[in-house]
Amino acid sequence: MYRTHTCGELRIEHIGQTVTLSGWVQKSRDLGGMTFVDLRDRYGITQLAFNEVENADLTAQARKLGREFVIQVTGEVIERASKNKNIPTGEVELKVTGLTLLNASKLPPFTIEDETDGGDELRMQYRYLDIRRNPVLQKLTLRNKVALETRKYLDAQGFMDVETPVLIKSTPEGARDFVVPSRMNEGQFYALPQSPQTFKQLLMVSGIDRYYQIVKCFRDEDLRADRQPEFTQIDCEMSFVEQEDILNTFEGLVKHLFKTVRGVEFEGEFPRMTYEQAMETYGSDKPDIRFGMEFVDLSGIAKGKGFPVFDNAETILTINAKDCSEYTRKQLDALTDWVKRPQIGATGLIYVKFNSDGTIKSSVDKFFSEADLAEWGKLAGAEKGDLLLVLCGGTDKVRKQMNELRLHMGNELGLRNPNVFKPLWVLDFPLLEWDENAQRYFAMHHPFTSPKKEDFHLITTNPGKIRANAYDLAMNGVELGGGSIRIHDRELQSQMFDLLGFTKEEAQNQFGFLMNAFEYGAPPHGGLAFGLDRLVATMGGSDSIRDYIAFPKNNSGRDVMIDAPSPINPDQLKELGISIG
Amino acid sequence: MYRTHTCGELRIEHIGQTVTLSGWVQKSRDLGGMTFVDLRDRYGITQLAFNEVENADLTAQARKLGREFVIQVTGEVIERASKNKNIPTGEVELKVTGLTLLNASKLPPFTIEDETDGGDELRMQYRYLDIRRNPVLQKLTLRNKVALETRKYLDAQGFMDVETPVLIKSTPEGARDFVVPSRMNEGQFYALPQSPQTFKQLLMVSGIDRYYQIVKCFRDEDLRADRQPEFTQIDCEMSFVEQEDILNTFEGLVKHLFKTVRGVEFEGEFPRMTYEQAMETYGSDKPDIRFGMEFVDLSGIAKGKGFPVFDNAETILTINAKDCSEYTRKQLDALTDWVKRPQIGATGLIYVKFNSDGTIKSSVDKFFSEADLAEWGKLAGAEKGDLLLVLCGGTDKVRKQMNELRLHMGNELGLRNPNVFKPLWVLDFPLLEWDENAQRYFAMHHPFTSPKKEDFHLITTNPGKIRANAYDLAMNGVELGGGSIRIHDRELQSQMFDLLGFTKEEAQNQFGFLMNAFEYGAPPHGGLAFGLDRLVATMGGSDSIRDYIAFPKNNSGRDVMIDAPSPINPDQLKELGISIG
Repeated sequence: MYRTHTCGELRIEHIGQTVTLSGWVQKSRDLGGMTFVDLRDRYGITQLAFNEVENADLTAQARKLGREFVIQVTGEVIERASKNKNIPTGEVELKVTGLTLLNASKLPPFTIEDETDGGDELRMQYRYLDIRRNPVLQKLTLRNKVALETRKYLDAQGFMDVETPVLIKSTPEGARDFVVPSRMNEGQFYALPQSPQTFKQLLMVSGIDRYYQIVKCFRDEDLRADRQPEFTQIDCEMSFVEQEDILNTFEGLVKHLFKTVRGVEFEGEFPRMTYEQAMETYGSDKPDIRFGMEFVDLSGIAKGKGFPVFDNAETILTINAKDCSEYTRKQLDALTDWVKRPQIGATGLIYVKFNSDGTIKSSVDKFFSEADLAEWGKLAGAEKGDLLLVLCGGTDKVRKQMNELRLHMGNELGLRNPNVFKPLWVLDFPLLEWDENAQRYFAMHHPFTSPKKEDFHLITTNPGKIRANAYDLAMNGVELGGGSIRIHDRELQSQMFDLLGFTKEEAQNQFGFLMNAFEYGAPPHGGLAFGLDRLVATMGGSDSIRDYIAFPKNNSGRDVMIDAPSPINPDQLKELGISIG
Repeated sequence: MYRTHTCGELRIEHIGQTVTLSGWVQKSRDLGGMTFVDLRDRYGITQLAFNEVENADLTAQARKLGREFVIQVTGEVIERASKNKNIPTGEVELKVTGLTLLNASKLPPFTIEDETDGGDELRMQYRYLDIRRNPVLQKLTLRNKVALETRKYLDAQGFMDVETPVLIKSTPEGARDFVVPSRMNEGQFYALPQSPQTFKQLLMVSGIDRYYQIVKCFRDEDLRADRQPEFTQIDCEMSFVEQEDILNTFEGLVKHLFKTVRGVEFEGEFPRMTYEQAMETYGSDKPDIRFGMEFVDLSGIAKGKGFPVFDNAETILTINAKDCSEYTRKQLDALTDWVKRPQIGATGLIYVKFNSDGTIKSSVDKFFSEADLAEWGKLAGAEKGDLLLVLCGGTDKVRKQMNELRLHMGNELGLRNPNVFKPLWVLDFPLLEWDENAQRYFAMHHPFTSPKKEDFHLITTNPGKIRANAYDLAMNGVELGGGSIRIHDRELQSQMFDLLGFTKEEAQNQFGFLMNAFEYGAPPHGGLAFGLDRLVATMGGSDSIRDYIAFPKNNSGRDVMIDAPSPINPDQLKELGISIG
């Protein structure tokens, strides 16, 4: 037996017991005739004491132990002379009488401490050492807890965990599908699912009633900094429900998770907002409502005063940065440069300072009287000491730019505390999105989302205005999850494919299996999927999804450690009937 | 709101309440002026009552409802005149006052009843209807329970659920890997894991201490009747453990699962047997010990008596079929034909009948005296009324054949009750397996399995005799799971790759990431993986893994319903730089 206890277990009440521990040497120090070694495992740190006078050999051995050596020790639990109140085992130590070296270690390339000297790249290259560090271990522990508590909650609500296939049929729609050649069916390919959407809908037709799965999904596309080609979803579907039932159920899940995993309790119900409101007020369908700084539309009062930039703009928006009137020229120039970067794309930034002495100072003094500017201030709720930041242009574009500026100001002013959590349901998403390049509509969510009944008459006149029974849960500027009430009627589903430009034949070939199933008593149903990676990172108070994945991939899709993917063995390719062009 | 209760919920105490239910029309019947409809959902069946006199319109509507129509009904819960003791809701019915048709259904291609008229193929084609049938639903429910109880047990034991990648590095060893071309790294491929073996070992190096995952694994190979290209493992690994710790932990898991999911309690500890004993006694490393019929070796007493078939054979084995001495000529001929089929490959079958009148009758009377045969009987424990079945040949071959015959006899004699569960640990597997064709050793388990210290000196003289610290859990003739204590020493791991014919360079290229990790303080570790599909099917008392999978694949790897894989879109291929040769 390698151990009787873990390194996080011994307390005052164990004093006098002979125990065996195994773990890693965190560090050691010599003090007088004593050598103290901190022994670490996943559960904690226990201090080992070696006494040179009582046991010279053992102490000599202990002094040779390097950092991260793996050892097994036996000894008596004794009370510590100088107690360490910072760790749960700090009142005791082990008076070691036996020591076995289980494995040596090279000098680690960075220190295995909470604060390490290892840079990102080095830590990722030696991820197995990085995970030994407490902050990383805690992130993986959090993920484990979130997953298990999700299961417990959903199980208690009658949801059934059903596995859906990973090797699925490839469809032409799946332009971002990974494809997997099949040996058994030469010249044919599986695809990896971007989500189990159609399978979970079939399970509703099957009468499973409440389905969930924590499931890997795949997307073969450009990897931005914090995107992974494989990602994990908490995927759920329910039958005989309306939108309200779904919102309640998953609001319950999120509350349960925050309570059990983070000890955070939300007061009352999560606030709700329509997509349209969210876009008007925050320029985003996942607004961060930890802080105000809502958009104020100045178009009605700032146009027609002879300032050509405004007069030619579709929309003029401002946000009120409280207590920022003392921003310096340099700070304002920096902000202007920031919004003019290509990623944001604004042509300029206009400010109005409401100085504490009551004067008003603006970059457009030439065009607007103090009374005009005071009127802006009134509309935007500006008080003495505040700063208005103004952008203008096409409505969609200026909303996007102002959203970025608002979040940037939120960061600058420290208004985005990662330990404050502000959920928001965003409702009534549009059903369709017009694609200028393709000159056709695409489903904003996916083609299985149901339109709102009261809007469906717009199908021939103005399809872009049809709202969907679709909803997202946003938190702190992050989309945690989203879903919709689905179509469960074959005819309506077929109309939807028409609208999306499918021929009858294409629709039948690709989604016939689902539409056929709808003919055999499909119940009304809907669902929601959370991105586990994002949920966990948000709960952990971090922006970085990668930190919460044990083996993340880097920007070119390679495992940070194991260096996947790799060139393939040509024999394997031949066997598959594939050649690389 | 679609419902206030489910169809499995209403009881005597609900009488007088007005409730709303939604579900499927199971069947309906007219009786006098009444129409009764059985309304079904996942949770049960509730009887709906329509009274023609009280509500002619509604009753007329109800009479038009076809099987599997989806409806919503409102009404008062009343006591049933004639109660149905067979279902939990059988004391009440719903006096319907409102009916909404939610969706119609075509006539299902088979009856949605426990006993259906649909054949296998039809049921698989319409799997979403098959799942509505109670026996299928119960199998998926069992799977869900097993998975959740596994998580609960392992979590309570300190195991952490850590996700490992699905898109991994392809290695030349992985001849049965699925490969996945990467858009981001042209000409390079990911592989899909056959198991997360190396990742879980890295997690042990990371100090995760106890890891588990219920995880999809993949194998691109011929699909036999009950094999799936994607399968699910309960994958576990532990640090600072010896074999005994692992056996105890997972024996605990299996006991927990049987108790909580099946209500079955095992008495005492699971029996154990070495691989060598299992092969000698049952000719199998996963013996079914629900019945005896152990092999008895007659080689010592049946050779040298002038019967050339025996004299030339390496090994002569018999099993004792109790109470079968009255097998007819026809039955014995059928058995002989059975063992001579190419799948078994025996050249013949010899029998000895120990008749109830005390006489002995054998197919080799010519060569052996009654005293000889009596001696065989004594060795095999045959009593009056028993039948010995004898096979001979090369040791390995005859053991395999006799194993098949024994299981066949077990089936014939009804000795393999699917509701009796007999676990058996099989220990001390050989480390290596000699491959005649390749003229080299292969790892019997995998190259990370540790050899037994006491055998390791055989490495230069007789490597085939080295036993591994490897173990399987068998039950009812099925291998539920297996594992080993791993190598955690770089040098030993390197020696193992030598033994398996890797050059130093190959070993470093393919498994360098793991051997390098071993240099930074790898703890002693080991683990085990259960095949969830097999575990669940065994617990459910079935031979068929497919029955326990919501969307199984058929023998050519196609989803039974969705018809994957599919020919790929040529544009997609071009984009991937791939052409089909």
